[in-house]
Amino acid sequence: MKPFRSAGMVYDGKTFAILDQTLLPHTERWIECNDVKTLVNLIQRLAIRGAPAIGISAVVLLALLAERGKSRNELIAEAQILLSARPTAVNLKNNIESILANIQNKNYPQVIVDSAEQICAEDQILCDKIAENGIKLFNAGDRILTHCHTGGIATAGRGTALGVIAAAHLKYGNIFVWIDETRPLLQGGRLTAWECVKLNIPHHIICDNMAGMLMSKGEIDHVIVGSDRIAVNGDFANKIGTYSLAVLASHHNIPFYVAAPRTTIDLQCHSGADIPIEERSSAEVKGVSGSFGSCSWAPAESNVFNPAFDVTPADLVTAWILDSGVFTIQDVKKDKWWEK
Amino acid sequence: MKPFRSAGMVYDGKTFAILDQTLLPHTERWIECNDVKTLVNLIQRLAIRGAPAIGISAVVLLALLAERGKSRNELIAEAQILLSARPTAVNLKNNIESILANIQNKNYPQVIVDSAEQICAEDQILCDKIAENGIKLFNAGDRILTHCHTGGIATAGRGTALGVIAAAHLKYGNIFVWIDETRPLLQGGRLTAWECVKLNIPHHIICDNMAGMLMSKGEIDHVIVGSDRIAVNGDFANKIGTYSLAVLASHHNIPFYVAAPRTTIDLQCHSGADIPIEERSSAEVKGVSGSFGSCSWAPAESNVFNPAFDVTPADLVTAWILDSGVFTIQDVKKDKWWEK
Repeated sequence: MKPFRSAGMVYDGKTFAILDQTLLPHTERWIECNDVKTLVNLIQRLAIRGAPAIGISAVVLLALLAERGKSRNELIAEAQILLSARPTAVNLKNNIESILANIQNKNYPQVIVDSAEQICAEDQILCDKIAENGIKLFNAGDRILTHCHTGGIATAGRGTALGVIAAAHLKYGNIFVWIDETRPLLQGGRLTAWECVKLNIPHHIICDNMAGMLMSKGEIDHVIVGSDRIAVNGDFANKIGTYSLAVLASHHNIPFYVAAPRTTIDLQCHSGADIPIEERSSAEVKGVSGSFGSCSWAPAESNVFNPAFDVTPADLVTAWILDSGVFTIQDVKKDKWWEK
Repeated sequence: MKPFRSAGMVYDGKTFAILDQTLLPHTERWIECNDVKTLVNLIQRLAIRGAPAIGISAVVLLALLAERGKSRNELIAEAQILLSARPTAVNLKNNIESILANIQNKNYPQVIVDSAEQICAEDQILCDKIAENGIKLFNAGDRILTHCHTGGIATAGRGTALGVIAAAHLKYGNIFVWIDETRPLLQGGRLTAWECVKLNIPHHIICDNMAGMLMSKGEIDHVIVGSDRIAVNGDFANKIGTYSLAVLASHHNIPFYVAAPRTTIDLQCHSGADIPIEERSSAEVKGVSGSFGSCSWAPAESNVFNPAFDVTPADLVTAWILDSGVFTIQDVKKDKWWEK
């Protein structure tokens, strides 16, 4: 397998290593990951997260194991164990199925390595295309608000929404980012801020409730977010708080973009109403917890509502930035609009 | 001095005690406060907070000291020390000036006690009138969203916005409260939640970025907040995040109310543009800190924007609930609209 490098994974020709995201931003610890047991543990304790990144880590590891002489049956068994680490992860499942498709081939180690290299390259190209399409919407000096984390450590490439921002900063040199801290899990204040530091992009972290005030003062030129699932009619689910931002942006006539690979479109979801919303534990809202420590400040007797996502209706979106192009609400009304 | 009791202060005829708000909600510790040094310390470390509550604590203590035989000069000196504990607190200054106005009176201890009792009673009546005016706007079964903390421990009475909610719950028995946790200082998740527990009002704490989603799902009937300063044209400043709520409420056609005493209107401020906005330390946004513990999760290199307040323009307000009545935008256009 050829050496491979992303913001959160490195294969240097000898060893595969994964950046432990749970320790960010305070500690950058790379963990050697040359067996399935280690990777399952990293996936389960969220040391590696982001659907594309998880999928990529699995194919890189399986390719290395094939190259190092594991038998067909051993590889199939290892793949099953990896799948069970995160049963709902679609990228993980698709990638593993695709890499095992030709396991009966006489020269299966080489076939698996070729397939893994192709999957990694494709994910990088996907991010590049999203970035390439997205930067057309931005100008020098833009001040861009983003929510949650959509950067390189979640993919094999430069990320989705944050990838667009990074590309714009690379082009113009003077992009400024407002980062929503993104309660309750603080992916913005922890991970997006860390990536902006690494990428030398000037930024300010804000609490999620400050975006409206900044918009009213003319301090935000664009909003760009990622997406966990896009319905066929353009409605999309993303981290809780995205919908509020879309309403606020609309009120202030600020363009609001969603950036994602085409594969995020779920053909089973006709509209946002079809997207199920996961509710998470009350402890997340009653405090904070991570490698940075734990605090709990709310009364034990209080109840909590903690939806992980919300749905933003298509009519609040200025443009959908996919790898296949930039689409407006007029485009989205057409059949299979995402196929440029 | 007659016995006096509020949610956060008790004078039982012998001892004056103050509830340490910094330990809430986990610990309810009452601290005896029979001298100025103790009260200054409580004020400065925010063990007692809320402009009305601070002002009341000072007059109660000065009345007790007068009753216990302090000389005129001693009382004047003690009052000066109290004033310097929080130089910008208008209630504190006004209350102390009013209590010392008749210090040259032959029977000054009794005059001071009478004056202190009157100030306490007036603050309670103020809260009662706001509540009485406000509950006319609510119905049985209402689900009400509030932001920050506006309850009894911040006043001598039942509070402002939370006082209205409590009065509505007392009347109907089935009010439900959505509590914004109110980043960065978490006054909602800590103090409003604690008061709702004490008052037996059913409630859910949410992160500030969840309100929009709840509104879109029809889960919020009204929004009610307090105010730190109201301009003559009805624009008002309140805890950061209030403006976003007002925009979201307007988008969803949900009534948005501000509840405050008439004295919150600042005649020097013609509009919201005249209200200065304090910026606070970056550490507040990069983490949390309190008696519940401390955590810091953001990169050291990241910058932060941390405004304490924002300004909501009058045209987003459905009604101003003052002690003098309920006022709409039509009323607010009139001269001295707050004088019913």
